[in-house]
Amino acid sequence: MATKLTNPDRLFPIEAQTRKLARELYEGIAELPILSPHGHCDPRWFAENDRFPDPAQLFVVPDHYVFRMLVSQGVPLADLGIPSIDGKKTEADPRTIWRRFAENYYLFRGTPSSIWLDHSFEHVFGLDEVLSAETADAYYDHIDAKLAQDAFRPRALFDRFSIETLATTEGALDDLRWHQMIADSDWDGRVITTYRPDAVIDPEFEGFADNIAQLGDITGEDTATWSGYLKAQRTRRAFFKTAGATATDHGHPTARTEDFPEVEAAALFDKVLSGDFTTDEADAFRGQMLTEMARMSLDDGLVMQIHPGCFRNHSNRVFAEYGRDKGFDVPSSTEYVRALKPLLDAVGMEPDLSIILFTLDETAFGRELAPLAGVYPALRLGPPWWFFDSYEGIKRFRETTTETCGFYNTAGFNDDTRAFCSIPARHDVARRSDCAYLATLVATGRLRMSEANELAQDLTYRLAKQAYRL
Amino acid sequence: MATKLTNPDRLFPIEAQTRKLARELYEGIAELPILSPHGHCDPRWFAENDRFPDPAQLFVVPDHYVFRMLVSQGVPLADLGIPSIDGKKTEADPRTIWRRFAENYYLFRGTPSSIWLDHSFEHVFGLDEVLSAETADAYYDHIDAKLAQDAFRPRALFDRFSIETLATTEGALDDLRWHQMIADSDWDGRVITTYRPDAVIDPEFEGFADNIAQLGDITGEDTATWSGYLKAQRTRRAFFKTAGATATDHGHPTARTEDFPEVEAAALFDKVLSGDFTTDEADAFRGQMLTEMARMSLDDGLVMQIHPGCFRNHSNRVFAEYGRDKGFDVPSSTEYVRALKPLLDAVGMEPDLSIILFTLDETAFGRELAPLAGVYPALRLGPPWWFFDSYEGIKRFRETTTETCGFYNTAGFNDDTRAFCSIPARHDVARRSDCAYLATLVATGRLRMSEANELAQDLTYRLAKQAYRL
Amino acid sequence: MATKLTNPDRLFPIEAQTRKLARELYEGIAELPILSPHGHCDPRWFAENDRFPDPAQLFVVPDHYVFRMLVSQGVPLADLGIPSIDGKKTEADPRTIWRRFAENYYLFRGTPSSIWLDHSFEHVFGLDEVLSAETADAYYDHIDAKLAQDAFRPRALFDRFSIETLATTEGALDDLRWHQMIADSDWDGRVITTYRPDAVIDPEFEGFADNIAQLGDITGEDTATWSGYLKAQRTRRAFFKTAGATATDHGHPTARTEDFPEVEAAALFDKVLSGDFTTDEADAFRGQMLTEMARMSLDDGLVMQIHPGCFRNHSNRVFAEYGRDKGFDVPSSTEYVRALKPLLDAVGMEPDLSIILFTLDETAFGRELAPLAGVYPALRLGPPWWFFDSYEGIKRFRETTTETCGFYNTAGFNDDTRAFCSIPARHDVARRSDCAYLATLVATGRLRMSEANELAQDLTYRLAKQAYRL
Repeated sequence: MATKLTNPDRLFPIEAQTRKLARELYEGIAELPILSPHGHCDPRWFAENDRFPDPAQLFVVPDHYVFRMLVSQGVPLADLGIPSIDGKKTEADPRTIWRRFAENYYLFRGTPSSIWLDHSFEHVFGLDEVLSAETADAYYDHIDAKLAQDAFRPRALFDRFSIETLATTEGALDDLRWHQMIADSDWDGRVITTYRPDAVIDPEFEGFADNIAQLGDITGEDTATWSGYLKAQRTRRAFFKTAGATATDHGHPTARTEDFPEVEAAALFDKVLSGDFTTDEADAFRGQMLTEMARMSLDDGLVMQIHPGCFRNHSNRVFAEYGRDKGFDVPSSTEYVRALKPLLDAVGMEPDLSIILFTLDETAFGRELAPLAGVYPALRLGPPWWFFDSYEGIKRFRETTTETCGFYNTAGFNDDTRAFCSIPARHDVARRSDCAYLATLVATGRLRMSEANELAQDLTYRLAKQAYRL
Repeated sequence: MATKLTNPDRLFPIEAQTRKLARELYEGIAELPILSPHGHCDPRWFAENDRFPDPAQLFVVPDHYVFRMLVSQGVPLADLGIPSIDGKKTEADPRTIWRRFAENYYLFRGTPSSIWLDHSFEHVFGLDEVLSAETADAYYDHIDAKLAQDAFRPRALFDRFSIETLATTEGALDDLRWHQMIADSDWDGRVITTYRPDAVIDPEFEGFADNIAQLGDITGEDTATWSGYLKAQRTRRAFFKTAGATATDHGHPTARTEDFPEVEAAALFDKVLSGDFTTDEADAFRGQMLTEMARMSLDDGLVMQIHPGCFRNHSNRVFAEYGRDKGFDVPSSTEYVRALKPLLDAVGMEPDLSIILFTLDETAFGRELAPLAGVYPALRLGPPWWFFDSYEGIKRFRETTTETCGFYNTAGFNDDTRAFCSIPARHDVARRSDCAYLATLVATGRLRMSEANELAQDLTYRLAKQAYRL
Repeated sequence: MATKLTNPDRLFPIEAQTRKLARELYEGIAELPILSPHGHCDPRWFAENDRFPDPAQLFVVPDHYVFRMLVSQGVPLADLGIPSIDGKKTEADPRTIWRRFAENYYLFRGTPSSIWLDHSFEHVFGLDEVLSAETADAYYDHIDAKLAQDAFRPRALFDRFSIETLATTEGALDDLRWHQMIADSDWDGRVITTYRPDAVIDPEFEGFADNIAQLGDITGEDTATWSGYLKAQRTRRAFFKTAGATATDHGHPTARTEDFPEVEAAALFDKVLSGDFTTDEADAFRGQMLTEMARMSLDDGLVMQIHPGCFRNHSNRVFAEYGRDKGFDVPSSTEYVRALKPLLDAVGMEPDLSIILFTLDETAFGRELAPLAGVYPALRLGPPWWFFDSYEGIKRFRETTTETCGFYNTAGFNDDTRAFCSIPARHDVARRSDCAYLATLVATGRLRMSEANELAQDLTYRLAKQAYRL
């Protein structure tokens, strides 16, 4: 007889009384709807509502958390069906890919991926045996059969997952057609976009000058000038708001901001647009644009998210053969105190501005981010991001930030995922981890149970709703 | 019926047997007198022994831990009675300030501030309901009535708090009149000063050249010359010793030290005194003076405290409107291994020297500070400072330093506060946190209970007494 | 009646059920043989099999963990028998040294040294009282008497410790005579060497040019040329393989790697060999050689260990008087993401290469090392090193790496010691700490007990065997 894949008391504190407190807190919030204010699901899924193609395409091929682990143990990207840029042959048979995944599934022991996957297998697909080489085919057949059912189409799952709002992320040049199609449909799921202008802000982005020209075409502004370029940005932000956007998102290599006088900013824009610029000028321009975006947010009310500090596409060979987002993104040491000063001097004291900071350098939580968020009204801390979206990551986040900036300068949870079926699992991990932390505070006399119950609601629902203006 | 504000088992380990060990350890040291060898209380309180003006002036207006949290959620500094530099109107009614504090008190959930405040409310003022908008006025009236009683005047509280020694901190140019007045009084409380020469050491301090001239006037030395300047420092140190000083304190942006040959040091002094110097020269001069101060300590026996790594007055706007110490000080990454080498090469092997190191960059504890303190006889580690003076901060401090430098290279606890009523609370948190850590070591077979009992005494009393030569 | 020095449940989780799980896991692996794939024991011990001279020479004089703690509290190195370079008088009486150690033994409370020492005292020598001034002489006499017995000679202890393989570390110019002598003996203990070429790779190493010339003499290659120098390295690697080497080891100040075109690399070699080079050129050359060594490893199969980030011989005075390895080595902040990129671009995707990374900067574990090891097939993470080879260090290592790179991108345990009698103690601490971590995962629903049992075997034995190709 197979047992459950997931333990009903998972992630709760070990000591019995504290576990009971955590369970009680969790029961109060387990059924709250999901707010997913930042993520990378494909809006097309919900626009077209086609079935997901197969188990490998659902769980392996698009998920860099999953395939990077297999690659680390010597499985070639091509054997996992990752499409190559140069058209080199890659595995096309989904069942073969699935088997490779299954026989290596033990590699995920102790990782959040195994919790998310087991949760999806059990709670979404009703499976109850551990995935392995032995169970690979049964798994494949079972999931594939489910995917053929209407109840497993994107919209049905969205509703079943109790998602109240799902934010996707689109580039500034996107026509948002899928969001329009959803809006025009008879389905009432709330899928909103997020304005992600990296391609028209980062001078080192592929095709930057062309992107700027295209931005001009779309908006009818003269983006060859600094003032026309800024106007075009404002126009696009307004357009994204019509597709429900409440936020912008900025993924920069560093947290650098600048606030140059207009003449200097305009000259810098000319420089980077010409293509003849240094690495430092590119970084300065990105920094200037963070401050410009913050000023626009003051006007149009869009919440600003800053996701800095990732060294992307670390392997030259993999980038050349397979392109971006292939699991070769690595965090690096990130400084915030000096980097954010120009932006904060410009707008940090504005209580009507909402800037949400993220980090891949956990040392910054206690040292820089909590002290900054604990005093500047414009700042909130986003939840642990990417590699740190996990039980231990959430624990460290709470332990290193709460004492300095409290709970109310944080912004609830983001799943930040492109793995749709993992959304309930990720929110469940966050809810359980937060309840475990709150229960520990109660058990050690640092919080009253009535306060913990209120906080459990806040951390699960209210803070995200408020910070993201949902 | 209201319950107690504070849980009698707060901060102890959760598991019953280990909690019992912690409680046993705590009971052995809970009543020990308080040594407060570093802090920022105003000696005038004890000299004049006037009543504290009102609850807002006692708990809110002077405490940047408290008002920064309210500011972070959009409450203007002016609404909290923080005096502005330019004479802009600020809230003058203490009851109105108190109500703003009370209605936002929930923001402190999970922070050490809430533990310190609840402890003061209950144990100093006898309150037993949670502070909130509803209880704000009752709180105000209750505390205000108490403050009118002789038993709540500064000296009476000092005695009631069982403070054996309280060190305040005064600038090098201070006339120490309040300490003299205390010494001349019939009260036997021991309030000693600490020599804090930043204003005559830091070329970037406001009025540096004037300060140096004033130092010359006070001491009768020719402070326009390097040798006269050093003599004047020695003279002031001797004067501070007459007011009980056993230590100096140095708050520098970095931990940099230098040990230039005399000719170079003298030339650098001329440079910074002229006002025509670079940022790097200012930093070099501060670094040179740390080594000079260490050499003077070898002669006069004053313990040396180094508090580096704070980015002060981060917001230009707040600094311009409200000045220093308004909650906008933020830790930054701090390097010690290379920075301290010149000083350590000069005097680090001296067993009769006591240099106490602090950090706002917790990553340095395990990586740099414990390894350094674990080998250089002159070094001791100060307790977690500022944002890290908390249950989790103390836990991380012990966990990351003990294994490398043991307990005996640490220097006991500092409350480092200007919030007088929080002193018993802060020492209580430190004592409980240390007992929790010791109990955990015992429960996991890393320490014997007899050793833990001895260590509890050492960490609470003996190490501070010894390190600060009290 | 004396009690045991060590608690049979030491380092296991506190909560009873979880402790039981940990004990069960531990019982399954406690008796597994010891693999010690990296360390600094002297092969001469096993070649000659002479008795260890005395308790002070066994436990104090050669162990910088031990004497640095005493030095930190003011005991002069000379009083501990540390030989000085300039022939200054040092303590020669082992009993006097032992007494100084014993009376200061309380300093080690809460440190891994106390666990290792107590374990050795009890389990190797059968002592059952705590070492102190009172028991110093009894301890000395007892241990000295044991050392006189054949059962306490190096080979006998090696066998009794169940060591399956012990790797020592020798410089590239070593003649490996002791390994030869062991091979020629009738004893079947497996003591293998490791190729440590720092003296012929680091231009800042004492006598670098002479070392290169000597390398030429030994190998018959023209080491005055880049190609001859590389050939000589290959020749020595092959020679070390004949003495059992399965690995190389590289101790560099930074993790910098380079991959210059051959012409540039050759020019850089000429530069550093001439003696007329900058600090940066020396660092660049070391970086180039890491990549060259990795390429040689691809050919000859030797596993590559990189131990970067130690600031060695921090005190000028101690280095001048006593030389290297006197406890004055201090970790420093270490960057890996950019530093390793040239090497990883060259060979990081090779599944047949095994590069084991170590760090003394724990912040790199979660931020850089686990993300890198979690995707590059050539990388594995070594266990916590040096100051972090402890219960808390292992806990932090597992907590900050497992969620990102899993268990299977780690390389088992290294004791890395020159303190022979501490080997069983160190492996026992690692085994217990890992079992405690696994039990915690099981108790919080993050791992199944069957998986934990398998992982306990893997972490104790299989991963080291595999990663080091033993």
